[in-house]
Amino acid sequence: MITSTLQRIVLAARPQGEPKPGDFRLESLPLPAPGDGEILLRVLYLSLDPYMRGRMTDRKSYVPPLQLGELMDGGTVAQVVQSNDADYRPGEIVLSHSGWQTHAVVTAREILRRLDPAVAPISTALGVYGMPGFTAWAGLGEIGKPKPGETVVVAAASGPVGGTVGQIAHLRGARVIGIAGGAKKCAFVRDELHFDVAIDHHAPDFAAQLQAACPNGIDVYFENVGGAVWDAVLPLLNEFARVPVCGLVAHYNDTALPPGPDRSPALMVNILSRSLTVRGFIQREFAARYPQFLQEMGDWLRTGQVHYREDIVDGLQHAPQAFIGMLRGGNFGKLLIRVADGAAVSDA
Amino acid sequence: MITSTLQRIVLAARPQGEPKPGDFRLESLPLPAPGDGEILLRVLYLSLDPYMRGRMTDRKSYVPPLQLGELMDGGTVAQVVQSNDADYRPGEIVLSHSGWQTHAVVTAREILRRLDPAVAPISTALGVYGMPGFTAWAGLGEIGKPKPGETVVVAAASGPVGGTVGQIAHLRGARVIGIAGGAKKCAFVRDELHFDVAIDHHAPDFAAQLQAACPNGIDVYFENVGGAVWDAVLPLLNEFARVPVCGLVAHYNDTALPPGPDRSPALMVNILSRSLTVRGFIQREFAARYPQFLQEMGDWLRTGQVHYREDIVDGLQHAPQAFIGMLRGGNFGKLLIRVADGAAVSDA
Repeated sequence: MITSTLQRIVLAARPQGEPKPGDFRLESLPLPAPGDGEILLRVLYLSLDPYMRGRMTDRKSYVPPLQLGELMDGGTVAQVVQSNDADYRPGEIVLSHSGWQTHAVVTAREILRRLDPAVAPISTALGVYGMPGFTAWAGLGEIGKPKPGETVVVAAASGPVGGTVGQIAHLRGARVIGIAGGAKKCAFVRDELHFDVAIDHHAPDFAAQLQAACPNGIDVYFENVGGAVWDAVLPLLNEFARVPVCGLVAHYNDTALPPGPDRSPALMVNILSRSLTVRGFIQREFAARYPQFLQEMGDWLRTGQVHYREDIVDGLQHAPQAFIGMLRGGNFGKLLIRVADGAAVSDA
Repeated sequence: MITSTLQRIVLAARPQGEPKPGDFRLESLPLPAPGDGEILLRVLYLSLDPYMRGRMTDRKSYVPPLQLGELMDGGTVAQVVQSNDADYRPGEIVLSHSGWQTHAVVTAREILRRLDPAVAPISTALGVYGMPGFTAWAGLGEIGKPKPGETVVVAAASGPVGGTVGQIAHLRGARVIGIAGGAKKCAFVRDELHFDVAIDHHAPDFAAQLQAACPNGIDVYFENVGGAVWDAVLPLLNEFARVPVCGLVAHYNDTALPPGPDRSPALMVNILSRSLTVRGFIQREFAARYPQFLQEMGDWLRTGQVHYREDIVDGLQHAPQAFIGMLRGGNFGKLLIRVADGAAVSDA
């Protein structure tokens, strides 16, 4: 059965604090036809990632904010339905960035790479074998630079970035402490991802547990959450510690500065007195190393040296609620929306 | 006439906020005699530097704090008076770290290098041609890394670190904005050090002047002050800007955190969203590059491509007041105490 409509989710209102379902709007449009040189994609998986919260706010960042009414941004795994580009054939699976919608008309330039299901499950191109995995690999390799025997701490440790950071650091010979929310996630981090220690940040004595787990201090803290975790980490950082900053999910819903005192001068004094490196980054600045990442991570996945977990929600219409839940830590593993079933390409 | 006493200044009390004269104590001791392999030095110049304020506070930093009653720390240019080490002869001028005193008994290990007055005035070994100059050279070269055409901002621009940072950045092809306190210092920065722009941080519209001077934003901010200057700089930093942090003199006398709101999460969000590098450092971590610095800076001084200014106060007994004034920005150029007159070696 040929679908004749495209469904998509747009930004309906700028969130005040935590996003609400009403900040999103599901729309139906006639299915567009690809023009000369264009390709019609059917989205199979949509990636939901914390950075999207930043795009919803009208604030200068590394990319311009979304406009009201604009399609929500997002990485996708999609299948070619119809192609007016000789390089792409119907049925091929590709990685794109076509947003929160069921279909997209793109040009070859907007296709990031072809996916071969024989190399790795196609959904991993949105997780461990894609942007989040590359964020982990590049941030750790280019900024964190753990040496054998050093102590690496990472939060959101059951997620696609944190989980990958810890496993790569472990492969590089570091001692790895993961922080996650709740006993189940901590068990996964310890037992499936083989971190040395996993600590529940909900524990009332979380900071004391972290200190006990880091008898030699912390050499690398991969920052993807901020908030209370960062407060517990900062006093434990060693001289010359490195802090790659790739996310601050604890602050994405902040609507105002927290009450005082103002700890920002003290943060700078800490950076000075312990010769810390605090380095914000976005993975695309390391794009030249992406082929090396694919090679190395492909090997690790094939040989079972890197593990991952996916949290898959069915149906584009559930994306807003899943996204809202993720910002609260409600997901367990890489959060994906299954927009369509990849086996049924002829139904497109 | 042979002096038979050594005068020295010790830490008498830990300062609460701004140091007071009573936090220091001048002591007289019998002049010690050098033992086997030891060398008696007569101090000619003592360097006063902002980092010394940190050493007076009982707080973990890159070196242990001074103990009460302990000799105040500091770099010195000194003359050999008597030597039981065959490598050193009376009359030679050396760089040492013998502290706030008129004489010191040292071993060869405590002598950092011999000084040749024919290469550069010996006092510069405590300024542009020594630790402060190396701090500027290494922090800019290893962390700031300005590219031609980029905008570099530095505060305390008439001082030995800031003035050197700006001149080196200029030699590297960057556009250089210096911040200094008062019209005289700004004129010096502009006219003698040849910065592109000099801005008085006392001006009521200082932040607006800085913004106007940086139409293309800021690519490198060499942080040596903190406080209101940092507040004005932060919003102007470009994506991928680098912030070598070598000092925070505006905060050294802080006794408590300033009132709220707490801007530290916002600082981290800025670091993330603009991919900033904020990197504390201490020059000794780059010690392997010191010979290259001496070579390069020696050439610049000889050819007149780098200029400097010294603020010389006579008499060890005036060191506390001069130091207290420096923390308020009262010095104009590299602050030195002339402890003795180098020409009169036979008087030692």
